[in-house]
Amino acid sequence: MKTGVIGLGAMGMPMALNLHRAGHLYSIWNRTRSKAETVARETGCLLADTIKQLAGACEMIITCVSRDTDVLEIINAIATSIKPDTIVVDTSTVSADTAKKAAARLSAKGACFLDGPVSGGVEGASKGTLAMMIGGEEPVLERARSTLTAIAANIVYMGPAGSGQATKAVNQHMAAGINQAVTEALAFGKSLGLDMNKVVDVISSGACSNWFLQHRGKSMLAGNYEPGFKLSLHHKDLEIVKSMGNNSTGMALPMVEMTLIHYQQLMEEGFGDEDISALFRLKQGT
Amino acid sequence: MKTGVIGLGAMGMPMALNLHRAGHLYSIWNRTRSKAETVARETGCLLADTIKQLAGACEMIITCVSRDTDVLEIINAIATSIKPDTIVVDTSTVSADTAKKAAARLSAKGACFLDGPVSGGVEGASKGTLAMMIGGEEPVLERARSTLTAIAANIVYMGPAGSGQATKAVNQHMAAGINQAVTEALAFGKSLGLDMNKVVDVISSGACSNWFLQHRGKSMLAGNYEPGFKLSLHHKDLEIVKSMGNNSTGMALPMVEMTLIHYQQLMEEGFGDEDISALFRLKQGT
Repeated sequence: MKTGVIGLGAMGMPMALNLHRAGHLYSIWNRTRSKAETVARETGCLLADTIKQLAGACEMIITCVSRDTDVLEIINAIATSIKPDTIVVDTSTVSADTAKKAAARLSAKGACFLDGPVSGGVEGASKGTLAMMIGGEEPVLERARSTLTAIAANIVYMGPAGSGQATKAVNQHMAAGINQAVTEALAFGKSLGLDMNKVVDVISSGACSNWFLQHRGKSMLAGNYEPGFKLSLHHKDLEIVKSMGNNSTGMALPMVEMTLIHYQQLMEEGFGDEDISALFRLKQGT
Repeated sequence: MKTGVIGLGAMGMPMALNLHRAGHLYSIWNRTRSKAETVARETGCLLADTIKQLAGACEMIITCVSRDTDVLEIINAIATSIKPDTIVVDTSTVSADTAKKAAARLSAKGACFLDGPVSGGVEGASKGTLAMMIGGEEPVLERARSTLTAIAANIVYMGPAGSGQATKAVNQHMAAGINQAVTEALAFGKSLGLDMNKVVDVISSGACSNWFLQHRGKSMLAGNYEPGFKLSLHHKDLEIVKSMGNNSTGMALPMVEMTLIHYQQLMEEGFGDEDISALFRLKQGT
């Protein structure tokens, strides 16, 4: 399918390049135009002047931005020119409510929407091995699947519109807890005077084995907090989780509450643009 | 090397069987004699009447028990008959101080001690794929290594006596945090009405991928808390971590403190013999 990509950030850029390698990339648009110009030059795809132009020319559109308001603005612009049966897959991490609004807006135009947030980090985006959690109508996913396999290795249908984002909220919640677990335990180990690179090696092969330790353990020990996944964005996601928790069952979510407080402190100290593993800064200080 | 095993519990039993398969198992002793009788019958190894008898007959002794006092009692019994240059490897999870005491006691007899706690769960013990963190003298490890490969796939030398246990403390600390992360996030997802087995499938393939989710996620969702790793034993380990934290830098360890409180509550409710994933009970209730 002729596929357009809107949003060429840390995740959107490698996804666009993987779609190009698979022969699907047709058009791109990005708020910072210079970035899109580079991609268009390298891939030979169509650099759209407007979202409207891109939306009118594509059979599938993948969006990858940061905030709920961005998604809704983009969907409104897409809706002005989208053709019936065109599929929009939003890979951003936003609320389930935003996904439902986007689905309704496009449904009114006879077009289709899937919420398809992803997990696997910038590494997974580069390698095309992301996990993708899909909300929407299952037959729409089956039409989109062969194109989506260019960017994701595990594509799971979760249920109606918003279910992908609800699943991603669980993922972001768990990511906060794992960040707490890994940074606090490594700070503890460092205080004991252990050879921490060896600690990461041996712990990574036992029952505490986890992606975050394997991919961020040694970089945080080296004081390298280059993203990766920006702490301020994870903070935004955890605000979504918190409000979903409050709205559903009023369930206590101490891991989320604690991480919001810690991230807020780090953001105030100027570390919001660093990787979430910068939580290691705070754990060493307390 | 003629190897003896003392302690045939959830971890010690599969380790003994792997040593047997590799041709190293010479003798066994267990507090509950009937268990040892079964193993002796199945493997043809020598069923020792006393620890003293086992210690006098073996070139290497592997101990696997639960508590610091048990380790020190066993080491005292071993010391009554052990021959010079015999290697004792304690795979129990105890304090670094206990490891140092055991090393000193055996050193006085011309024998050698390694603290070699393991990680990888009962699954890793059965498959012989455990991670083993070694404290002691490195040349002793090199003499022991070929035998230890029957039970562990990743054997890492961490430093002098006690360093293996200090590394294991970091592991147990991280395990507590990961348990908090996984149980709380899955309870949150369940409250949202998601298909939780699918959630486990998709999250397991992204940046939240971790051993505990993969091995305990679906069992806890099914209400199955069969150990695995007994909650009361992890509670004991976390008390060690807490005291090490207090003794070293006075560092705040909120993940440890919170988990101790939660485990205490579950133990009071009669769930201490369940797997640590029984924390999911508490997360659903709050």
